[in-house]
Amino acid sequence: MNASRGVGEFDLIERLAARLAPLESGLGIGDDAAAWSPEPGRLVVATTDMLVEGIHFRLDWTTARDLGWKALAVNLSDLAAMGARPGRALVSIALLPGQADLAEQLYDGIAELARITGARVVGGDTVRTPGPLVLNVALVGDADPDRLLRRGGAWPGDLLVVSGSVGASAAGLALLVAGDAAVLARPEAVPLLAAHHRPWPQLALGAALAGAGVRCAIDISDGVASEAWHLARASGMEIEVDVDRLPLSGEAVALLGPARARELALTGGEDYQLLFSVPEAMLAAVEAALPPDVRLSVIGRVTAAREGGAVRFLEAGVPIDIQEAGYVAF
Amino acid sequence: MNASRGVGEFDLIERLAARLAPLESGLGIGDDAAAWSPEPGRLVVATTDMLVEGIHFRLDWTTARDLGWKALAVNLSDLAAMGARPGRALVSIALLPGQADLAEQLYDGIAELARITGARVVGGDTVRTPGPLVLNVALVGDADPDRLLRRGGAWPGDLLVVSGSVGASAAGLALLVAGDAAVLARPEAVPLLAAHHRPWPQLALGAALAGAGVRCAIDISDGVASEAWHLARASGMEIEVDVDRLPLSGEAVALLGPARARELALTGGEDYQLLFSVPEAMLAAVEAALPPDVRLSVIGRVTAAREGGAVRFLEAGVPIDIQEAGYVAF
Repeated sequence: MNASRGVGEFDLIERLAARLAPLESGLGIGDDAAAWSPEPGRLVVATTDMLVEGIHFRLDWTTARDLGWKALAVNLSDLAAMGARPGRALVSIALLPGQADLAEQLYDGIAELARITGARVVGGDTVRTPGPLVLNVALVGDADPDRLLRRGGAWPGDLLVVSGSVGASAAGLALLVAGDAAVLARPEAVPLLAAHHRPWPQLALGAALAGAGVRCAIDISDGVASEAWHLARASGMEIEVDVDRLPLSGEAVALLGPARARELALTGGEDYQLLFSVPEAMLAAVEAALPPDVRLSVIGRVTAAREGGAVRFLEAGVPIDIQEAGYVAF
Repeated sequence: MNASRGVGEFDLIERLAARLAPLESGLGIGDDAAAWSPEPGRLVVATTDMLVEGIHFRLDWTTARDLGWKALAVNLSDLAAMGARPGRALVSIALLPGQADLAEQLYDGIAELARITGARVVGGDTVRTPGPLVLNVALVGDADPDRLLRRGGAWPGDLLVVSGSVGASAAGLALLVAGDAAVLARPEAVPLLAAHHRPWPQLALGAALAGAGVRCAIDISDGVASEAWHLARASGMEIEVDVDRLPLSGEAVALLGPARARELALTGGEDYQLLFSVPEAMLAAVEAALPPDVRLSVIGRVTAAREGGAVRFLEAGVPIDIQEAGYVAF
């Protein structure tokens, strides 16, 4: 369950969760995905994400096909962050009258990513709305019960590691918001817009991390700062992040400058890279197990246990103040 | 997958399904819920329903708590129609700013029905919208692989049977649409409004039917006429419905008259009773296995195999013309 992307009431998740029966497994609301064990040796993992026109996307900025891809991708990313394998998806769409063609294009994008990743759309619901367009994907998958990645698995001495580069998607969104046609036409804009419209879920990386013995991960939906806080709180640990070591998107630096690129990496979100913690002695094994083309950057360290968790951001070794803002809707 | 409730494009489901990889099991899009076998001996069943303010509900006509109940109930009803047991639910809500209290009331209603039925809400997504309010529930459960109720299981000679009474929910909605305070205050209105706001998913009945060997069922979301057509088409059978034998809601007859009550039973929908076909020789065993307080009415018969399926409606033995209209949004 993830309410951080919009309601603006940070305690709402807890208030809603308090109304539900407690889960016997302790796994569920609060992690990237819910997980439960229907029988010994099996673990089912499930997640859902809702995208609303005007909040999460604009149809003049994205194609319906890309939007379909992204709606499935953000759910697959939740499973990747748990080290889980994708299974079956249910797709709900609320459409305006006359948007049937658009529904087909959405499905084309969903089907394209489903084919690549092995997910299968098995059903859904298509309803009418006066607007805006709403798209919901629910996804179930499975994981090895003793190989689950959790937000609460960090341990003192662990390294904090991020995959790929960060800030590209938020930079792409920033270019769309600015709307400067000359900048949007520059070649550096292409990968930034692609990162925003067609995020790649790190399923192979999540599986490799789980297989190598990593225990703590989260996907970057809301920016490195927000996700580091999630890990710190769930683990009850103090985490230091060296912001100089963030693997910034080169194109974001080229088009927006290093300061803005760093800000977007920390607080922009939608990179869908994985942020994880790993004992230093395990890092070589993790590197050896990586999928091709995945690079890792050590950006910090878990320093100590601390009730409630905390994150310290360091620049040239000096603490700096970073807002935990996370995703900012346009 | 069920697009009959709003888009107004009856071929949209087929157009969307054509974009997806075919399902190895042949179970999925087109039945009340999707089903797949993750391993021999196990069958997972999954469904999702999206409710949109102004299309499926109005907040001046329903409490948020009742709406939460109903959102879970309609999904549970899909599982009941497959003979499946409820498992875990994912709840997505798109809210306007300031509607956090409303989200809590929605969750109270969801949690109330979850407790009664054994379903568990394990996660979800809560996002912002400029409006209208949108509520999506995705639900997974399980069934015995050799005891699944399907739309396509009717056979010549089977009796067509419906549970409970029909037309009450649509009558309740008709009273709300008419808005006559004097009528709404009459005692007969109470059960009609309750049927509309707090439908009861027939899980025990679905399990009893599956256990007794019934093979063909559907839940009444869109009215008896529409659901009979679904059974007829999926089974490739001709079905006769004797409209004089419909178990009309007594309160609907009292407040709206028999003709309108019958029309609402046939084309109103949202009763969430089960409509099923059963060999005549099996009916006694089915009656013996019924949960307490469930009554059955034989309303017709499967007469013959017929390519594409067909439904004939008879009044006093004479064919009459019934629109397949199904759910009509206000």
